This record gives sequence, C-alpha cells and structure tokens, in this order.
Amino acid sequence: MNRQQIIISPIGIIHTPHNDINNMPIQPIAAKDIRGHIELYPEYEEGLTDLEGFSHITLLYHFHKIQGYRLMVKPFMDDREHGIFSCKAPKRPNAIGTSTVKLISIEKNIVNIEMVDMLNGTPLLDIKPFFPKYDNRIDAKAGWFDKTVSIPVEKMRSDERFRK
Amino acid sequence: MNRQQIIISPIGIIHTPHNDINNMPIQPIAAKDIRGHIELYPEYEEGLTDLEGFSHITLLYHFHKIQGYRLMVKPFMDDREHGIFSCKAPKRPNAIGTSTVKLISIEKNIVNIEMVDMLNGTPLLDIKPFFPKYDNRIDAKAGWFDKTVSIPVEKMRSDERFRK
Repeated sequence: MNRQQIIISPIGIIHTPHNDINNMPIQPIAAKDIRGHIELYPEYEEGLTDLEGFSHITLLYHFHKIQGYRLMVKPFMDDREHGIFSCKAPKRPNAIGTSTVKLISIEKNIVNIEMVDMLNGTPLLDIKPFFPKYDNRIDAKAGWFDKTVSIPVEKMRSDERFRK
Repeated sequence: MNRQQIIISPIGIIHTPHNDINNMPIQPIAAKDIRGHIELYPEYEEGLTDLEGFSHITLLYHFHKIQGYRLMVKPFMDDREHGIFSCKAPKRPNAIGTSTVKLISIEKNIVNIEMVDMLNGTPLLDIKPFFPKYDNRIDAKAGWFDKTVSIPVEKMRSDERFRK
C-alpha cells in the first residue's frame, strides 16, 4: 500500500480583496466581478506561454488558514451535515482548493483574474487551462444539492464555521 | 514571501486498466466507457456520505510516475510547444492531476467510476463533487487549442514523451 507523503511547493501567491475567511463569496460564480491577481514566482514565468487566449483557468491552491479536517461538515450551502467528499468545504483531509476563474490579462509573471473566491495571500499550487470541450459536464446531477438548495449561491457568503 | 512546503498524504488509490503511461486515453471524455474504482482508505469512508446522487466527481491525484517538470512542453494534442500552464500535461511543477469522472456506485470504501484516464495505482488526493451550476463554463474559449487542434480527442492516445 502506497501511503508515502508528497511534498508540494507553491508556485506563486494569489492576491484578492478577501482578507478574512468570514463573509467571502463561496464559489467563483458568486464572485463574478471581483478581481485579483496571481503573482507567479518569476522562475515559472515561461510556463505561462500561450495561456493568454484561454478565457478561463482552473487554479489549484492551498487552504492555508485551515487546520485539520472533518469527515462530516455543514457546508455553507446547507444546514445539514454531509460527507466532506460530497462538499467543497475547505476542512478536508488534503486542504487543496480548486476554482475556475476568468483570465483577464497577463503581464510578465502577473496574471490578472476575475471571479476570485479565495483568501488574499493564498499559496498557488497549479494553473490548468479550462477546455470547454473536455471540462464541461452539461448533463451532470448534483445529489443533495439539487434536492435541497434553493437560495442562489450568488447571495451566499462564508461565515466562521471552518475557522477552528 | 510564503514559500513553505506543504505535505500531502494520499487518501486512497485509483485502480484502472491502464498499466503503462503509453497508449492511454488523454482526457476523461476519451475514456467514456472505461471503468475503474477508487479504494478509499477505510478511515475516510464516512466522508463519502451523500456522495451517491452526484453523477460526476472531480478527482485530484498525484502523477506518481512523473519525475521533475518542464516549463515548455509538446502536449499530446499538438506538435508545437506550449507553456506548461496552458496545457494539462503531467510534467508540471506540482505533479497534481485532475479528472472529472462519472460516478457509478459506492460500496463502503469502494467508489466505482467510469471515464478513467489515469494510471493504475495512482495515489488519490481528494474527491470533490461536480456541481453543474457552478463548475461548467459553457462559453469558455480555449486559445491555442481552438485555433489548431482538429483531431477529436477521443482518437488520441498518450505516448512516451513524458516518461523521462
């Protein structure tokens, strides 16, 4: 059984207007007009070649303010508990988040983005281009969420529940 | 500047029919009928609660056979070089892959899936539910790919290029 640990090093920092984990947008589509930028560490700048031209990119990042994890959580979108793997809540066994944001422009190692729903200062782990032909799942079904959530996500904000 | 390292521990293993990095499907949609299963380590089983009911899940995993990285690569889908962050090629600064696969069924800590495009024995890092309302980007544009790639991805297979 392979249980070896994997060491990950951030490739940059995500700068956003969100300085506190309370009262944040809880999904990129709830952050439509909110701008931020990626400061990619200069040694990785060449890797951005040809990224301009993609309208959306998926960021992988570290939930760096989260301590430990829970297997059952009340996500922001419901008042009942669900398993952590049926939620995107940050308090997960590996504290990695993903957000597909809008790419605005690139200047050297700075990538300007929109739809930012992560904390200011978040360590960036990877940038992946979004390919609509491969990455959309138009006919997907979303279990507990389809059955119970009626408030539009655009109106929801985070709170204190995952601070400790 | 926060350049601290982050330690990640696999939460399970992905079992697939792909035993060699050569001649694999290069995207989940190129692996439509190919089945596999996740063996989640038993201590995380409770975290699967309510996942059944989602038709698709996004897996984060470790490209465990990849050594080192390149900033410019020729992806499987093109014969020209592009920056690593404008491709999904595995030889990236942090060797983390993502695939949105079809969820078939769950039996205790075993999650049966379809559309598997990763190597047999791949260490699993996270499972995230796919929310069509939040995760689709219908009107996205895909830069170099839209301009140059005409072969359907379903017909493409991986080769030896990232083995060393």
